[in-house]
Amino acid sequence: MSGGGYMHVLAFDIYGTILDTNTINVGLQSLLDIGEQKSTEICLLWRRYQLEYTWRLNSMGIYEPFDVVTSRAIEHALAEHGIKFDERKIVQIMAAYNRLQEFDDAAPAMQELRKLPNIEIVIFSNGTEDMVTKALQVDSLSTLTKRMFLADAAQTYKPSRAIYDGLVRHVNEGASQPVAADHVWLVSGNPFDVTGARSAGLQAIWVDRSSSGWIDRASRFEPTKVVQSLGEVVEFVRSL
Amino acid sequence: MSGGGYMHVLAFDIYGTILDTNTINVGLQSLLDIGEQKSTEICLLWRRYQLEYTWRLNSMGIYEPFDVVTSRAIEHALAEHGIKFDERKIVQIMAAYNRLQEFDDAAPAMQELRKLPNIEIVIFSNGTEDMVTKALQVDSLSTLTKRMFLADAAQTYKPSRAIYDGLVRHVNEGASQPVAADHVWLVSGNPFDVTGARSAGLQAIWVDRSSSGWIDRASRFEPTKVVQSLGEVVEFVRSL
Repeated sequence: MSGGGYMHVLAFDIYGTILDTNTINVGLQSLLDIGEQKSTEICLLWRRYQLEYTWRLNSMGIYEPFDVVTSRAIEHALAEHGIKFDERKIVQIMAAYNRLQEFDDAAPAMQELRKLPNIEIVIFSNGTEDMVTKALQVDSLSTLTKRMFLADAAQTYKPSRAIYDGLVRHVNEGASQPVAADHVWLVSGNPFDVTGARSAGLQAIWVDRSSSGWIDRASRFEPTKVVQSLGEVVEFVRSL
Repeated sequence: MSGGGYMHVLAFDIYGTILDTNTINVGLQSLLDIGEQKSTEICLLWRRYQLEYTWRLNSMGIYEPFDVVTSRAIEHALAEHGIKFDERKIVQIMAAYNRLQEFDDAAPAMQELRKLPNIEIVIFSNGTEDMVTKALQVDSLSTLTKRMFLADAAQTYKPSRAIYDGLVRHVNEGASQPVAADHVWLVSGNPFDVTGARSAGLQAIWVDRSSSGWIDRASRFEPTKVVQSLGEVVEFVRSL
């Protein structure tokens, strides 16, 4: 907000962008007493049902908090693999989910971004406040939780139009100058999030960590910018 | 509508219920010159993206016809597998999709259901009129296309609340007596369809062809009735 330039807001997605959802793998192996391959399959299925559930609930016009959705999704994945579980086991797995490891480039990138003028950072996630706060409680990331816009506030999940509109309203609350939607930059590793933001008039930086290239064809919308790491986000934002 | 009893409407889903989406497999193998395993993986991924896209579009408040969604989904699946394609190839694959095989129990079940009094049959599908008409043009099923309620009419996909409400309005158009939502029975092999119908106040018969049992946990909604085949649907409907 200082200086003469226009302010840009960076709205960071968490799961799959700052936090590596695959790092639950090791925890799952010991909690369920299974091997790495089985654990990897269950992780992928868990993530898939987690997202599927959010989109189906959006379609049905129903909202339930992300911790409920996430625990139901792991139950579905375990049942599909014929793995028995009880409530205690699910609580343990959910606790492990709140200790996901961050990607290596997350903390350094945040440190650099905080130094830049005219840049504000907001956490923008499907997760509940409790989940996000616990997941980001490592020293290098905990200050991020000062400013968050979460699905609970919009009572709907990404990529619902309402959650992106809600984000834009949120960043304008108490701002010294209005921030237009096209000065709000989603930073996300998730294509469904990127197309959702773009369709709502926001900008979007897609973090293509596996360098797979943009092959999503759900809609005509594409990222404003593609990067391979959060470090590259810093370089790009400096050029704004 | 004859006799003294209340009328019940059976709203049949097509893809995954009457038509076996896995039967595209053989066609894909020859069109793409790939082996059975690769073809199976691509089929599953194609179906996954097809559904993912419909749910994401629902969330974004965007509607595009199912043939567009389906062809984009195969492009995504092929790109992910590093398989090159051009427009001509996609047209050929889509033509094969319109020749999906019906499940063996579909034609005999329809024949029996048509004999029952107080039972009306409606086709209820995400597919376009062109897709559905082509897919059902085998002798034993073609009369089904006389009465259809398709996503195009609601401009939204399953499990959007609006498509189930639209179905109930549709079955009441020109009916000699009003048909309440709880006398409309979805028949579907797709859990997302079943929960969508139930959340909108309809009844739902889930066709669990693989006898996996109900493990879907997206919501608190469950099927009214679970069967393993369309033959069992006939038995159940006789008891209504």
